[in-house]
Amino acid sequence: MTGSAHPNSLVSALFSDRHIGVGAQPHVHHMLTTLGFGSLEELSAAALPDSIYTTRPLALQAAVSEEAMLAELKALAAKNTVNKSFIGQGYYGTHTPGVIQRNVLESPAWYTAYTPYQPEISQGRLEALLNFQTVVADLTGMATANASMLDEGTAAAEAVALMRRTNRSATPDAVVVVDADVFPQTLAVINTRAKAMGIPVLVHDFADDGALPDVEFFGLLLQYPGDSGLVRDIAPIIAAAKERKAVVAVAADLLALTLLESPGELGADLAVGTSQRFGVPMGFGGPHAGYMAVRQGLERSLPGRLVGVSKDAAGNQAYRLALQTREQHIRREKATSNICTAQVLLAVMAGMYAVYHGPAGLRRIATRVHALALAVADAAAAAGHTVVHGNFFDTVKVRVAAGSGHSAAELVAAAHTAGYLLRQVDHDHLQIAVDETTTEADVVALAGLLAGRAPSGAHGAGGAVLPAEASGVALPAPARATGYMTNQVFHAHNSETQMLRYLRRLSDADYALDRGMIPLGSCTMKLNATAEMAAVTWPEFAGLHPFAPASDTVGIVEMATQLEEWLAEITGYDAVSVQPNAGSQGEFAGLMAIRAYHVENGNPDRDVVLIPTSAHGTNAASAVMAGLKVVPVATDGFGNIDVDDLKRQITVHEHRLAAIMVTYPSTHGVFETSISAICAMVHDAGGQVYVDGANLNALVGLARPGKFGADVSHLNLHKTFCIPHGGGGPGVGPVGVGAHLAKHLPARELGLDSSVGLVSSAPYGSASILPISWAYIRMMGPDGLRLATQTAILSANYIARRLSEHYPVLYTGAHDLVAHECILDLRGITADSGVSVDDVAKRLIDYGFHAPTMSFPVAGTLMVEPTESEDLAEIDRFINAMISIRKEIAAVQDGLWPAGDNPLANAPHTAQGLTRDWDHPYSREEAVFPAGVDPRAKYWPPVSRIDQAYGDRHLVCSCPSIEELAEVF
Amino acid sequence: MTGSAHPNSLVSALFSDRHIGVGAQPHVHHMLTTLGFGSLEELSAAALPDSIYTTRPLALQAAVSEEAMLAELKALAAKNTVNKSFIGQGYYGTHTPGVIQRNVLESPAWYTAYTPYQPEISQGRLEALLNFQTVVADLTGMATANASMLDEGTAAAEAVALMRRTNRSATPDAVVVVDADVFPQTLAVINTRAKAMGIPVLVHDFADDGALPDVEFFGLLLQYPGDSGLVRDIAPIIAAAKERKAVVAVAADLLALTLLESPGELGADLAVGTSQRFGVPMGFGGPHAGYMAVRQGLERSLPGRLVGVSKDAAGNQAYRLALQTREQHIRREKATSNICTAQVLLAVMAGMYAVYHGPAGLRRIATRVHALALAVADAAAAAGHTVVHGNFFDTVKVRVAAGSGHSAAELVAAAHTAGYLLRQVDHDHLQIAVDETTTEADVVALAGLLAGRAPSGAHGAGGAVLPAEASGVALPAPARATGYMTNQVFHAHNSETQMLRYLRRLSDADYALDRGMIPLGSCTMKLNATAEMAAVTWPEFAGLHPFAPASDTVGIVEMATQLEEWLAEITGYDAVSVQPNAGSQGEFAGLMAIRAYHVENGNPDRDVVLIPTSAHGTNAASAVMAGLKVVPVATDGFGNIDVDDLKRQITVHEHRLAAIMVTYPSTHGVFETSISAICAMVHDAGGQVYVDGANLNALVGLARPGKFGADVSHLNLHKTFCIPHGGGGPGVGPVGVGAHLAKHLPARELGLDSSVGLVSSAPYGSASILPISWAYIRMMGPDGLRLATQTAILSANYIARRLSEHYPVLYTGAHDLVAHECILDLRGITADSGVSVDDVAKRLIDYGFHAPTMSFPVAGTLMVEPTESEDLAEIDRFINAMISIRKEIAAVQDGLWPAGDNPLANAPHTAQGLTRDWDHPYSREEAVFPAGVDPRAKYWPPVSRIDQAYGDRHLVCSCPSIEELAEVF
Repeated sequence: MTGSAHPNSLVSALFSDRHIGVGAQPHVHHMLTTLGFGSLEELSAAALPDSIYTTRPLALQAAVSEEAMLAELKALAAKNTVNKSFIGQGYYGTHTPGVIQRNVLESPAWYTAYTPYQPEISQGRLEALLNFQTVVADLTGMATANASMLDEGTAAAEAVALMRRTNRSATPDAVVVVDADVFPQTLAVINTRAKAMGIPVLVHDFADDGALPDVEFFGLLLQYPGDSGLVRDIAPIIAAAKERKAVVAVAADLLALTLLESPGELGADLAVGTSQRFGVPMGFGGPHAGYMAVRQGLERSLPGRLVGVSKDAAGNQAYRLALQTREQHIRREKATSNICTAQVLLAVMAGMYAVYHGPAGLRRIATRVHALALAVADAAAAAGHTVVHGNFFDTVKVRVAAGSGHSAAELVAAAHTAGYLLRQVDHDHLQIAVDETTTEADVVALAGLLAGRAPSGAHGAGGAVLPAEASGVALPAPARATGYMTNQVFHAHNSETQMLRYLRRLSDADYALDRGMIPLGSCTMKLNATAEMAAVTWPEFAGLHPFAPASDTVGIVEMATQLEEWLAEITGYDAVSVQPNAGSQGEFAGLMAIRAYHVENGNPDRDVVLIPTSAHGTNAASAVMAGLKVVPVATDGFGNIDVDDLKRQITVHEHRLAAIMVTYPSTHGVFETSISAICAMVHDAGGQVYVDGANLNALVGLARPGKFGADVSHLNLHKTFCIPHGGGGPGVGPVGVGAHLAKHLPARELGLDSSVGLVSSAPYGSASILPISWAYIRMMGPDGLRLATQTAILSANYIARRLSEHYPVLYTGAHDLVAHECILDLRGITADSGVSVDDVAKRLIDYGFHAPTMSFPVAGTLMVEPTESEDLAEIDRFINAMISIRKEIAAVQDGLWPAGDNPLANAPHTAQGLTRDWDHPYSREEAVFPAGVDPRAKYWPPVSRIDQAYGDRHLVCSCPSIEELAEVF
Repeated sequence: MTGSAHPNSLVSALFSDRHIGVGAQPHVHHMLTTLGFGSLEELSAAALPDSIYTTRPLALQAAVSEEAMLAELKALAAKNTVNKSFIGQGYYGTHTPGVIQRNVLESPAWYTAYTPYQPEISQGRLEALLNFQTVVADLTGMATANASMLDEGTAAAEAVALMRRTNRSATPDAVVVVDADVFPQTLAVINTRAKAMGIPVLVHDFADDGALPDVEFFGLLLQYPGDSGLVRDIAPIIAAAKERKAVVAVAADLLALTLLESPGELGADLAVGTSQRFGVPMGFGGPHAGYMAVRQGLERSLPGRLVGVSKDAAGNQAYRLALQTREQHIRREKATSNICTAQVLLAVMAGMYAVYHGPAGLRRIATRVHALALAVADAAAAAGHTVVHGNFFDTVKVRVAAGSGHSAAELVAAAHTAGYLLRQVDHDHLQIAVDETTTEADVVALAGLLAGRAPSGAHGAGGAVLPAEASGVALPAPARATGYMTNQVFHAHNSETQMLRYLRRLSDADYALDRGMIPLGSCTMKLNATAEMAAVTWPEFAGLHPFAPASDTVGIVEMATQLEEWLAEITGYDAVSVQPNAGSQGEFAGLMAIRAYHVENGNPDRDVVLIPTSAHGTNAASAVMAGLKVVPVATDGFGNIDVDDLKRQITVHEHRLAAIMVTYPSTHGVFETSISAICAMVHDAGGQVYVDGANLNALVGLARPGKFGADVSHLNLHKTFCIPHGGGGPGVGPVGVGAHLAKHLPARELGLDSSVGLVSSAPYGSASILPISWAYIRMMGPDGLRLATQTAILSANYIARRLSEHYPVLYTGAHDLVAHECILDLRGITADSGVSVDDVAKRLIDYGFHAPTMSFPVAGTLMVEPTESEDLAEIDRFINAMISIRKEIAAVQDGLWPAGDNPLANAPHTAQGLTRDWDHPYSREEAVFPAGVDPRAKYWPPVSRIDQAYGDRHLVCSCPSIEELAEVF
């Protein structure tokens, strides 16, 4: 009757029944029978090696319902106190426009989307990212901005790397000079990364004269406005630095740039920062979108993703990721950057905030913020304190009057009591940063506090502290004279109706999980349940500043700590840190822990990390960033690590062996039976074992890396633990370690001693989305988690078995079983027919699917991962589509259709194409409604096949002007 | 630069700038210039008659920002206390599945949709409603259910009317017998309506023997389970009543029917009730979807909307409203029912709740509820009390033990203190109704309370009160033996992923305000802003039972009272009631007030109401329902009331004149200049003036009916005041009256004396959506509201002027101006070309628009209302589409295209149609991408023109079985 596995239960509904797609017993039975197994237990016992398989139940609390979970989470949230923040320091209060919150952040069409590697079905978010890039490029005065960075700290660290990379004239000993007035968390992240790369960092106070230090430096990073609020005339410093052949980066506040002369105009080579205050809640530190923008000539050195304009097969304008070779095919041991995860969802929000407000609206917000800051400064002066800087944007640094009878600490404490968070700098100084959410009443209350009075009412009484007109506000210098955001898109969506329709139109262009399966091997595109998402927008989490006093953040820290404990139990490790805000960051943190461990044990020379050739490219990139040397290990004909080669490499690098990095189950989707032996071999040689947790969805509840021989893993909460991919970010990449490595986890707090330091700007990384994974684990419980894993393995094997007579399944393990994904080998078919994996991927769009992972880990193959969330009907729909496509390929092979003109070569087919003259050897109906496609539920791609190379040759990475369009086409 | 009308303001953003689409000064200037006016003030002063026009600012607080409004509303919400309700009485706690809350209730694709009168672009919500109908029909055991009623009380009142209407054998003096065990609020609504219609109501206690009263009765209404919780064997009563030729209705609980034999099986003719507990929050009384279902043979007597299956021009299955002649063309003075507003959004939610849980899931929930009720009964007995009924579903009636030392009132008070709301029946009795949200811990706590102990922890400690298995639960009798919800749709969407995709797929079929303009004259499809919608799902409002103690509901009552006061100020009346939960109910309430007023003044014979022939059909229907006689008044050649005919009618009906009902501005979209004179004439003759507030969007801030001569108006909050149409409900229809009528407003409370009584089941009607209008008024302020009206008038006149050279504008007023809408007269064009308004309406779909209002108030015309929320680009897009269509019509007129085969006759065109052989005299491209249509932003209708008559001849009104499909096609 129903999908429930619990027909006679009196529990109203188990969440696991909603999460797991294949729930109905007849369906499970059918799939098991196809595979020749009698039960899920039998299947999983057969699939996993005995040496790692466990039936020990996870020591987690039993599952609770969605409502009970939400009640528990609400109780944790209630332990937080959301005081109004004036801390600043890179995190500001902001109003998320309701239309953006509800129709982007809370909309499955946006948050369940995948990274736009298939551009034909990603035009909506690509356009949204192009808007973001345009906003950043325009405001910073740079030629090209990328599609986001993880946060300001990592963006600054990447800027250091970029400056080092591109400055060919500097000697290897040259330092990077960092402005002493940089945000402390930015400096901390730079230090962590620079240390790993062997780059010396010189923190320099430019004082009043702006003089540069007398050392050789390859790069200079300035903060603008400074951490202290000071807006300095940085043009002479930049000019002097460039005179000395340094590359110059400026960390700049986007809102301030609506009033201030831009870094580009001031001569800088690149700019970094955050777009958080463009409508993205502080969320105790993240996620939000960092940014990086570069002057003309540096585009091809820019890390991260870059959206560009190209054209499709019909000659229409189309967007796609530009210059992907920089990212997609990371050159492993030569990698210098590792930003595979961007913050797409948050960049979309920030870009839309700018679209909604338009340039005049942004400028009005900035002017009001500045006017309020002026009022705060006046109040401080009136109270007898000294305003330290005369030229500021939003942050007022105050030296507390010695005779006031109050120390800075006392004033900060009094403000806290009154519901305001100020920033204490030292005994004599405090800072007050104003933002979009500040009211005139707040300023009145602050004035009272600065004068030593308690405010009268809640958050102060009213009062007129602003001039009557914007024209009456004295702006900071250097005042901006140039325009920005002149493109039509920033002027056509300023009413809520217009914005709503724009968001709908863009999301309609895209294919996300809310339309159908996204069977991406290694990416684990599973359900992101509504109940899991609910808390992300709760003000108790969203409204917290990352550096709020500990007494304000009790609940969120307790939640994050519980999550770390649960993840430790699930993985079998002793300690977990959720700070890394992407898988790549977790990987980096894990390797840094290993490196620190060897140093601690007197083995600083252990710097070789063995990585199988089948590994994900990020493994090697992270290793390089962590200052390790990458040595490849061969794989055998079955896709498994070549144990003999491993032995050889261990012998060769005996004394320098730091670690092996393996993915388990392997990137080939197979449970390698030798895993325990491999771990033992490496340990015996003094190395550490790093298990990449990318494929943890095949292990949860069945095996624990921390118990079968691994020392470190990073997880991907956006894979196994239900954080949505958001169209290419946010991600969260916790790192788990054995007890011996626990002390080498990232620092818990800014300023705390730690061997590794901070890897992200905020102590808990992307804290505001951690409730998603917390909720998932709480609602699934040990039984649900295990059942999910078993179902994921069942579904992958069902697909592999059903498709194996049509496409060779490249690798299988024991009992001819795969793990949670399978690789379909198209190389023979391609050789025989000329039909490529690309053709199949694009043809799947016509069938209403997102393509599986293409050519990874093996070129010419497709890797399919259904996850546990897909139901049998959807799985069968996919299988039938693949079989139907195989028949189409056969028709090409048989010469029925020419190689250059068939439904595969011409895929995807648009509706617009149907209206044109039709001279193909197949019909319009065969083109767009192939077998199994319901015309009434058809997903129509907005563009046909996109010409990738064309766009790279004619690089346009911001909203194109009419002239640029004319030039491109 | 931006759309703001306040370029030099330091206010971050005015909500009115977001709400009003035409904001940019150059755009306003362009439109004014087109009309020959220099300012909005000039335009509105010219458009409105001097006698009513006012520049007096509305006495409302100045506008606040979205954030400040939300803070104020949150403060009001905080004054409510959401205790856990065990009151029952037709309102129950329920878990709204997150996936439904977020993707239906909070999704603009669903809530901004209009009533599905254009079925080709409404297939999604039509399918959703068909699901709802199927659930209701299956569970009640009836042949046909409608697409919802306003609530259980009005559904029961309509059942009485239906029984009276269809029982031809009963004499005019026959009574309706109503079960004494009916919900008191249902009885109250029946009494109000029956009194107006002159139907005697006999409340009868069936006691133990079930004997019928010894009077002639045409109908019988039973409650099942009863208000007291009793589940009685009603089969013998039904049989006896039918023996006496009565029609039998049963008010039944849908959840109980998953376990109990259905009314249909028990012999009833019809069933009514509510679907609230299927996932729709209580919301202090509404909105939620009532229902009505009838046995075979009564389909055509069913009031309200009915979705049925038909086919489209290509022969594909398609849904549309069936038997529309019953509703759409209300036969004015012969009308017997007036249910134009349904509760579509809520019916969609309830239907989806059933789809998500499936039959087994619903049965499991019901079994658990019943098991918990059994546990409560056991606890009551164990505490020494008497459980009054032995056979119950969810409600336990308890006679408090005399020796317990506690009265029922004391136990109820103690429970309240502990956070539980019980229902006190009388001194000795209380009732406890269990629902889906009840936990075992709750039952333990209740057990303690019944035993006179305070519960130990918050909402009690845990405890096992349920049997281990559902099979261990003793079910109530008569047990249901028949299945239900066997259709595939109830078995294919039980995982969250499946449900998410189903909702996406259905909403993708539909056209709502999130895609483009819906220029429906008289329907005022304007922005429903996110900030306005936010509070609807706040638990502080959503979680309140309508009969919760007054101390729990302070905030919501204060909010509703403020809204009433604001509406009174805006309309110029002295008192407003928000109780009517649809415009039709407000109309009924207003006319009842007039009738009561005349009776009070010794003029019971004043029962004639004058209604212009151009009036909306509901005017007459409401008058008939209020027991008044309708006399039509002619309109002149300019669409205005024929003052001479009015004089004649006043003279003819001198002593019987009760009132005149006029719409202002008129349904012709014109500000009649004689309005003040008309009001005076009627008043002079002793009549009252009823101004239908449907067109209030042309008056707010410019004129006030209560001050220019009217005594009563009903408003439509879902028109002027931003409550979304929800695809055809919810609506809210407050009634405003002069001081002399204030005492005749609907009763404020159940049981309070009132001349009129209750018109809706709940004291504040659809209370949970009132915050939407509250928010709108609070954020717009007096200036914003006035500007909105002026802009609506500007946009309507701009359209009229621009289109007048292509289509005759039927009526204009002074200065050749229309009000906020205009009528395009196609009759000449149709006569000349054969192209009908229907063809134009369907062709507009191809251009990406919802059609204007068709053939109302004048057959063969289109009435266009842009509202203030549309921007100039969208308005011009519409104008250009209409001009382009006019050229297409010319091509037919010129014989270029045959009358039977042209883009108009064949509209709308589907994508599927493009794949078929094309033998039309116009191209595929002309068909689907006519002038101005961006192929990448194209809305594709899922079906082509629907054959309305075919579906009515082959009536299928629930999810069709394979057999039915075979028969239909």
